[in-house]
Parts: sequence; C-alpha cells; structure tokens
Amino acid sequence: MKNQDRARLLVSCVDQPGIVSAISTLLYENGANIVESNQYTTDPSEGRFFLRLVIEGDQLQAKESKLKAAFEPVAEKFGMTWKWSFLHHRKRTAIFASKDVTCLRELLYQWEGGNLDTDIPLVISNHETGRDIVESFGIPYFYIPANKEIRKEVEARQIELLKEYDIDLVVLARYMQILTPEFVSEYPAEIINIHHSFLPAFIGANPHRKAYDRGVKLIGATSHYVTNDLDEGPIIEQDVGRVDHRDQVEDLKKQGSLIERTVLTRGVKWHLEDRILVHDNKTIVFN
Amino acid sequence: MKNQDRARLLVSCVDQPGIVSAISTLLYENGANIVESNQYTTDPSEGRFFLRLVIEGDQLQAKESKLKAAFEPVAEKFGMTWKWSFLHHRKRTAIFASKDVTCLRELLYQWEGGNLDTDIPLVISNHETGRDIVESFGIPYFYIPANKEIRKEVEARQIELLKEYDIDLVVLARYMQILTPEFVSEYPAEIINIHHSFLPAFIGANPHRKAYDRGVKLIGATSHYVTNDLDEGPIIEQDVGRVDHRDQVEDLKKQGSLIERTVLTRGVKWHLEDRILVHDNKTIVFN
Amino acid sequence: MKNQDRARLLVSCVDQPGIVSAISTLLYENGANIVESNQYTTDPSEGRFFLRLVIEGDQLQAKESKLKAAFEPVAEKFGMTWKWSFLHHRKRTAIFASKDVTCLRELLYQWEGGNLDTDIPLVISNHETGRDIVESFGIPYFYIPANKEIRKEVEARQIELLKEYDIDLVVLARYMQILTPEFVSEYPAEIINIHHSFLPAFIGANPHRKAYDRGVKLIGATSHYVTNDLDEGPIIEQDVGRVDHRDQVEDLKKQGSLIERTVLTRGVKWHLEDRILVHDNKTIVFN
Amino acid sequence: MKNQDRARLLVSCVDQPGIVSAISTLLYENGANIVESNQYTTDPSEGRFFLRLVIEGDQLQAKESKLKAAFEPVAEKFGMTWKWSFLHHRKRTAIFASKDVTCLRELLYQWEGGNLDTDIPLVISNHETGRDIVESFGIPYFYIPANKEIRKEVEARQIELLKEYDIDLVVLARYMQILTPEFVSEYPAEIINIHHSFLPAFIGANPHRKAYDRGVKLIGATSHYVTNDLDEGPIIEQDVGRVDHRDQVEDLKKQGSLIERTVLTRGVKWHLEDRILVHDNKTIVFN
Repeated sequence: MKNQDRARLLVSCVDQPGIVSAISTLLYENGANIVESNQYTTDPSEGRFFLRLVIEGDQLQAKESKLKAAFEPVAEKFGMTWKWSFLHHRKRTAIFASKDVTCLRELLYQWEGGNLDTDIPLVISNHETGRDIVESFGIPYFYIPANKEIRKEVEARQIELLKEYDIDLVVLARYMQILTPEFVSEYPAEIINIHHSFLPAFIGANPHRKAYDRGVKLIGATSHYVTNDLDEGPIIEQDVGRVDHRDQVEDLKKQGSLIERTVLTRGVKWHLEDRILVHDNKTIVFN
Repeated sequence: MKNQDRARLLVSCVDQPGIVSAISTLLYENGANIVESNQYTTDPSEGRFFLRLVIEGDQLQAKESKLKAAFEPVAEKFGMTWKWSFLHHRKRTAIFASKDVTCLRELLYQWEGGNLDTDIPLVISNHETGRDIVESFGIPYFYIPANKEIRKEVEARQIELLKEYDIDLVVLARYMQILTPEFVSEYPAEIINIHHSFLPAFIGANPHRKAYDRGVKLIGATSHYVTNDLDEGPIIEQDVGRVDHRDQVEDLKKQGSLIERTVLTRGVKWHLEDRILVHDNKTIVFN
Repeated sequence: MKNQDRARLLVSCVDQPGIVSAISTLLYENGANIVESNQYTTDPSEGRFFLRLVIEGDQLQAKESKLKAAFEPVAEKFGMTWKWSFLHHRKRTAIFASKDVTCLRELLYQWEGGNLDTDIPLVISNHETGRDIVESFGIPYFYIPANKEIRKEVEARQIELLKEYDIDLVVLARYMQILTPEFVSEYPAEIINIHHSFLPAFIGANPHRKAYDRGVKLIGATSHYVTNDLDEGPIIEQDVGRVDHRDQVEDLKKQGSLIERTVLTRGVKWHLEDRILVHDNKTIVFN
Repeated sequence: MKNQDRARLLVSCVDQPGIVSAISTLLYENGANIVESNQYTTDPSEGRFFLRLVIEGDQLQAKESKLKAAFEPVAEKFGMTWKWSFLHHRKRTAIFASKDVTCLRELLYQWEGGNLDTDIPLVISNHETGRDIVESFGIPYFYIPANKEIRKEVEARQIELLKEYDIDLVVLARYMQILTPEFVSEYPAEIINIHHSFLPAFIGANPHRKAYDRGVKLIGATSHYVTNDLDEGPIIEQDVGRVDHRDQVEDLKKQGSLIERTVLTRGVKWHLEDRILVHDNKTIVFN
C-alpha cells in the first residue's frame, strides 16, 4: 500500500532563513523523500511562513516516532506550529446531517468513489431521512433529535459518540443546529460547515429567501471552519451558480443545493489531504 | 439599413387573457412582423405580465407615429406600462468616469467593435485621466471636478450637459461620486452603475479591502440601476472571479477590474437592446 | 393540480407575417392564456421561425382534442412542424445505464427532488451495478447483457420493453453501447446521450485518455441527441471543469463524471420541459 | 527595489533523494531565503521532479554569478535542467500582431497596470491597425507586410529585430501567419500563441465558423507554446464562454475575442513569472 509509507507535514512559523534547508536535510537524513511541496510566505512586513510537504520513504510507517522525535528540536528552534499526518493512520470523519440529505449523499458517494481519503465511522442526524442511504454503506446512523431547549444534552451525547469513535473531523452537512462554544472548542479547525450563501452575503437563516428578495443574479455556497461567531469562521471554499428572474425561492434552494454539495466536498477533501492552514481567521489552501 | 425598419416594444401589466393576441394582431394589421419575442408571467398569485418584442416591417420608420397611435388604445385597455424603441432613433449614452479608466476603455472598445448599439456624445469625468483615450474616438470630454461640498453645482452642470446632448442613458463607469435624489429622479432606471463587489456583500466603500479582510475565495462585481438607496438599486448582472490567500488588496482590485468591465458592459448592452424591465426593485432580463 | 390545465406548444416553420397573431388569437378564442413565450427567427436570408408557448386555461385538459383540432388548419396554412405537450400526459422516460452509475443516480435524485417532470417506468442496464439504487425507488430494473455480437437481439428486447412501457424519451446515462440505425430511427430526437468530452474534441472512445495525452487544462461533457453519426448529433448542452498537470487519467474520469451528471441532467430537464427544437443538426434551446 | 534582490529558479530532473535538501542548503549558505516554493513529482513509475523557487536575499543582485557558479555542481550531480531568472534583468517581450488588435491592446493595458512584469521594446505587425495605440505607449511599431510568398524575407527581418532588441519572449497576439521551423527553433518554448478555439477542437483556420456549423454551446480559446506542429504545442491555458443558437459566426468572433485576450494574458503572465515548465509536450504550471 502506497499510503503506508507516506506522510504529510504542515508547518507555520515566523519566516527566517534556513527553515527549508533544516527540514529537508532532516528528512533526507531520515530516508524520507519530498514528493510534493508548497510554500507561501506572507509579505515581509508580516513575514509568516507556511509549508506543506508530502514525503515518502521505505518503511516510513515504522519510522513514524523516530521521525517525529527528530523533527521536534527543529520545530522548536524555529518556533513552529506543525502537524504530522502519517497516512497509515487514516483520518476519521463524522458527518452531522439533518432533513435535507443532498450534501450527505454527495459525501458518501464521493467517499465511495475514492475522492475522500477517510474512514466514516458514523453519521449523526436529528432526522431519520438519511438512515437508509447511510446504512446501505454499512455506516452506523445515530438519530439524535435536537432543538434549542435540549442543546446541552444533545451535545453531550454527540461528543460522547465522537470520542467513542475517535473522530478527527466533524462535517456539518446541512446540519441546521447551532453548536455551543463548548462543542466548538473540542474541535478547533476540525469542524467544517456548509453555508447556503456566498458569505458574507446573507449571513444567518433563510439566505435563499433573502437572495430572492434582493434579486441577485448568482447564488452561492461557502464551506468554512466553524468558530463561535456564526457564519464568521475561516472560509475554505466558495462557488456560485446563475439564477434569473423566473427562479422562485424554491428554485434557488434546488439550484443552491447543487452548489453546496460541491463546495462542501471540496472543503472536506482539502482538509483530509492536509491542504489547509488557518491563520488570522483566514485559510491558506495549497490546492 | 436593417435598423431603420426595426423597433422594440417592452410591456408590463397585470396578466389577463388576450394580451398577446391583441398586440400581435395589431402589429400584423400594421404590417409589422414579430422577429423575436420573450414573455414572462409571474406566479398566478401576483399575475404580472412582461413582454419584449422585436418587430420589423417595410417602411417601419415611416409608420412610427401611426403604429404608436394605434397601440395606445390597446395599452390603455390592458392598463399597460410600455416603452417603444424605434431603432432609427439610436439611444444616446453619456459615460461618467473618474480616475480608474478600465471600465471606460472597455465601453469605448466594445462600442467601437459594434457591441453597444448607441451614440456616445460625451464623457464626463472628475479626473483628466481618460481624456486622451476618449478624444481619440472623437468624443467630447468634459472635466468637471467633483466632491461632496460642490455636489449641487457639479450636478447642475452635468444635467445641463445631459440635456444639451439629449442623453437617454447615463453609465457610471467607476464614477466614485454619490448622486443626489434630484439627479437620480431625472433618469429613473436610466442610470447604470458598476459596484465593485458581489452585492449585497460589501456594500459601500472599499469592498476589496473588506473582501480581503474576510478572506473570501471569490470576488465579484454587480451592475445595477441607481436609486436613492446606495448600492440597493435593481441588480442587472453579476459575476465573480477566483482569488486566493496570496492575493493582497491591490491584487483584488486588479482582478476585480476585469470582472467589473465585463459585468458593466453586459448591463449596458442589455439596456441598450431593451432587454430589461424593472419591477419591485428587481430586473427581468430577457437575454 | 396546476399541471392538469397546462400545455406547451413547439412550432417551427418558414417565417411569414401573421403567425403569432394567428396562434395567439386562436388560443385566446379557445380560453387558453399564454403564460410563457419564446420566439426566435433566424436571419432573414433563411427566415426560419421557432416558437415555444406555455399556455393555461380553465379545464384545459378537457379541451385537448378540441384545441388540437382547431390548431390544425392554422398549422397547415403556415406549413408548420409542431408538437403539443399537454401536461396531464406526463412524459415517460427510460434510462439506459451501464457500470458507472454516477449519471443514473443523479437523474434519479433530481427526479426525486422534483427537477425532472417525468415518469421513469424502467431502467435498462447491461450491468447489475445500479440495481439496488434503482429498485430503492420502486423502479423496475432490467439487466440485459450487451455486446457487439448480440446487438440485434439486445435491441429487439430493449425496444419491446420501450413499447411495453410506452416510453417517450430514452436517456443514455453513460450506456457505453452503440445503437443501430434501426433503434435510433424509432426515437428521432428522443434519445439523449452524454458524451464525456467537450465535443467535437475527443470524439469516440477514451476521451479522458486523449485529453490527458494532449495536456488540456479543461475537460468537458456534452449532452446531445443521438443520430446515426457517432457523437455527431445535435448538441444540447456542454460544460467544462478545470484540471491541471497533476491530474492523471483516473482523476480526469472522476472530475469528468461530476460535469457529465450536470450536463446530462440539464439536457434531460430541458427536453422534458419542451425547451428544445432541432434544426439542421443544431438545437434551439429556449431556456 | 524589491525586485533587485529576488530571483527565481526552475528545475527539472529525474527524481532522487536529497534534491531539495541540496538546493535549499546551498541557498541558505549563500544567504538566499526561499519565499515561495512549488514542487511536483510525477508518478513513481516515471519519477520526474519539477521545482519552482522564488528566493530573496540582501545584495542578491551582486551575488548572481557567485550563486550561479555554486549551483552548477549541484545541478550536474542531479542531472538537472534548470533556469535562473534574476529579477534585476527584466524579461524583454516582443508582441507580434495583425489586424485584430484586441489581444494587443489587452497586453498593453495589463502591462501598463503592472500585471505583466516585462519590458516591451517593440511590436511587429503586418498591418498598420495597431500603430496609434502602440506608439501612445512610446513603443516602436514595425510594420512588416507578410504573406506566404515572402515568408523567408519577413522572418529574416523579424529575427534581426528580435536580436537587435534582445528579446526573450515572443507573443503572437492574433498574428495570423505561420512561422517556419527555423524561426521556431530560435525561440524554443519562448513563443506563445493564442488559438481562437478550445484545442484540440477546431484546429487550423476558421474555428468560429466550424464551431458555428457544429452548433456548440461553449466557445473557447487556448494559449500555447508554438512548436512546428500547427496548434499542437504545449497548452498553457484555456477558457470558455457560453454561446447559443442566436449567435452567428460574427457573434462568436466577438465573444471569442474576450476569451482570447484573457487566456493569452494569463499565459504570458505565467511565463514572465517563471511559472511554467514544459515536459513531453505538456506544461506544468505552478500558479
């Protein structure tokens, strides 16, 4: 298996001479070959360094702890924030869904087709709509009714499940409930939401109704990391589609759902491939 | 000349049986042939009827007043709002520009290339930047410095010129001054502005700075009719382009200007071709 | 039911004065109101007239034969080719599929979501892959193995089924077999295929391999009516997506399938809504 | 000046361990800091390594020959093909134009706006159409009539000018003459052409006529390096725009020219920024 001997490394730090040399030499000395690399440094005034590497090597899997240990002093020397992903540990994704299953279905089919490199150990929903499709993939489906009044209990149960199933990434596939700060703080930059508008236009509820009222000629969708400011988290991806005067609110919803599924899938795919770094409430996406 | 014997008719009224029959029969009896037709009726609950016709006929030019007179009783019977455009009267467009001449240039070149069916008798600007290019087309260029304090005098002079040159359409090609209600009321649905964002995102000043701060992945532009609510007029056309984390505010401006010129040109073109009806602060665009 | 009292009319003929007047007056006199209309006339040199009308009226369903009969003399007078669709007769669509079920699935979901106004009485496939999904919709699934050698018997069985189920439209949703002229002649302009390239680039087999070899930066898909010239039928819709040097043939296939499903669905939707007229191996699409 | 102390390095070689380490260490030891980096390695089966670096450093300009000399043994050790661009040597671009000046104008305006980092010491054209616009930028304009019969003399004169003006890049901005292999061999991967179709569809002359005849729903443009196979050189960039049944050949041309100018400008910009590597008649574009 090719993935057994592959890893990815994301690095962020203050720019300074010698970073790439130090990392690449260390990797070379440890028998790891860089097969993909992207580096971006912000304007000298700020001077922030961002790096994504994909490496491979014979028996890389076996060298995981050795390599991580060897990297630590380098990371400390340069004051790095960093993240390793050894691909023999596959990321584990939970999908949260609700009544409209368009996004849920898309994620499952893209996953089945090999586009999303993850395990999907469970789906949680506050409706039963998605059960059949989810179970047809052999994935457990947890129906947890939710509303504002019982948010606390609901989230306690959800987090219990996420811990039990050892989840790395939570995808809100048109899950229409707001998460509490407590929940969000458990998964920083690890919860991806799809908002059914081109943010920052039409923040909040009923964006398609608002878009209709304003008479826009394009509608959009935005995938973003969830923070405690509703619809204000770092934007990962956006796209739009054309509408016209004949389209009613219902038509915008239908049209919009086709954009949402694509925009969410791209965001999830890039996260799973460790292509995204977050800085200052924005994303650097190496895609 | 083909255009000599062509006309367009825009109609809006409460829907009711027999409208198309009445109009088409009247045209037929007056020797006018319908060569293009678009009709849209809103949901029965509202039941509003919109129609655009292009007609042609032998000696149509000579029949203008006869046809208009014949149409009037039909229009009154059905309570229509309507607008005739006989193509032998070419529309007359004034362009208002400022320092950034990208949109101005585009309009002139598209006009030269035959894409904008209009006369352009004058350009008014509060900067001298565009003079050379405008005068190279043989078009008079009026430099009228403008700012908040002297708005009244400036607009008086502008309106004087618009009257003198018998203008039908005013295009604000990145003219950065706000127009007073008095000015706007002189040209209802006859002033087209380009806003350098995907409205309603980033209303007001500095949309590219705001887009940069928010970390959006697409930037846009919007052409719309000017009303007295800043950036709130009926949207004619919108489009977007992709940006990424490397793009600074200056890059967004450059990228944005390429979208703006296209979106403004389309809006102006459709207006000149009588493709746009305004209803309820929205546009019906028959394109 | 709104659709009970609606009909659509497609007309094509040599342009001449009085057509719209004749049709609209006849409809008016028969209590039918035009709610949507599109007319296009080719250049005077050719002078071909194309019209699409949507009409509604009290008890329109009951007036079907009366209206059709009343229309016939008008149609004959102007030498029209025409087609009525009374919406109380819902069109009946058969989907032909093969191993890759992406397009099949999309059609079923768009249909379930109310975007495709048709019955789908059966799916025919030369693989078993799609059975579960199709049967989960309660639609009969006919597995008919197919290859060049047994084409004749296969098509005989297929046509038998199409007749039995009274099919109006055949959609080839990545059905990879070539149809014989005999089959095609049974359904003129009633078989829609999706070709996995931006035609006329990469006609024939393995377009993604060819696209990869050529190093294109966009890949596309084309939905078209099937004629006896392979991949040469009238194009209904096309779209493209971006690829880059990192994408292998397999990646192009995956990316391509997302474009194909959209382009096929649009083509089918427009056909079902009677938006397409065919003339001279091209389509007029009133969308 | 920021550009004074910047350079770019493009590298291509057979993949092997230690390349990045060797290069980055060498740069570090010579006081050059990597500010941007893109690496792509083809499938292990082929194992080809491609790298683009942007570096900066105090007094980098003064270190040019020292750095180049220090790099040579590394390059030889790994069998590299490589190319340095020190930004204090600005690339020098010649534009070849003809009658239609849309692309020429766009290049000049984008250049004026700071989007194309190059000098433009001359424009050569076989028509006089572009003279005014070119000379308004203070750029010499050489009118050299051209046709098949006098190709040899014409090219001799052109190459003489290119040598005299020390040109690095030739841009064919809708220059409609075919270049001889002798000419092409003087500027390998340094001549960029814009073809007015989505290659490989509609190779050769009159692509818009062919597109019209085929009834396509999108038209495109392709920028590519010129080789001796007409329209078969490595594709740099492509884009498309939507057309419909109403568009005549003339409309396709007008629409097409807006796509061409964008696609050509992107290709030229990327070349000037050393973002393009050519391998196996394809491009790797690090954009």
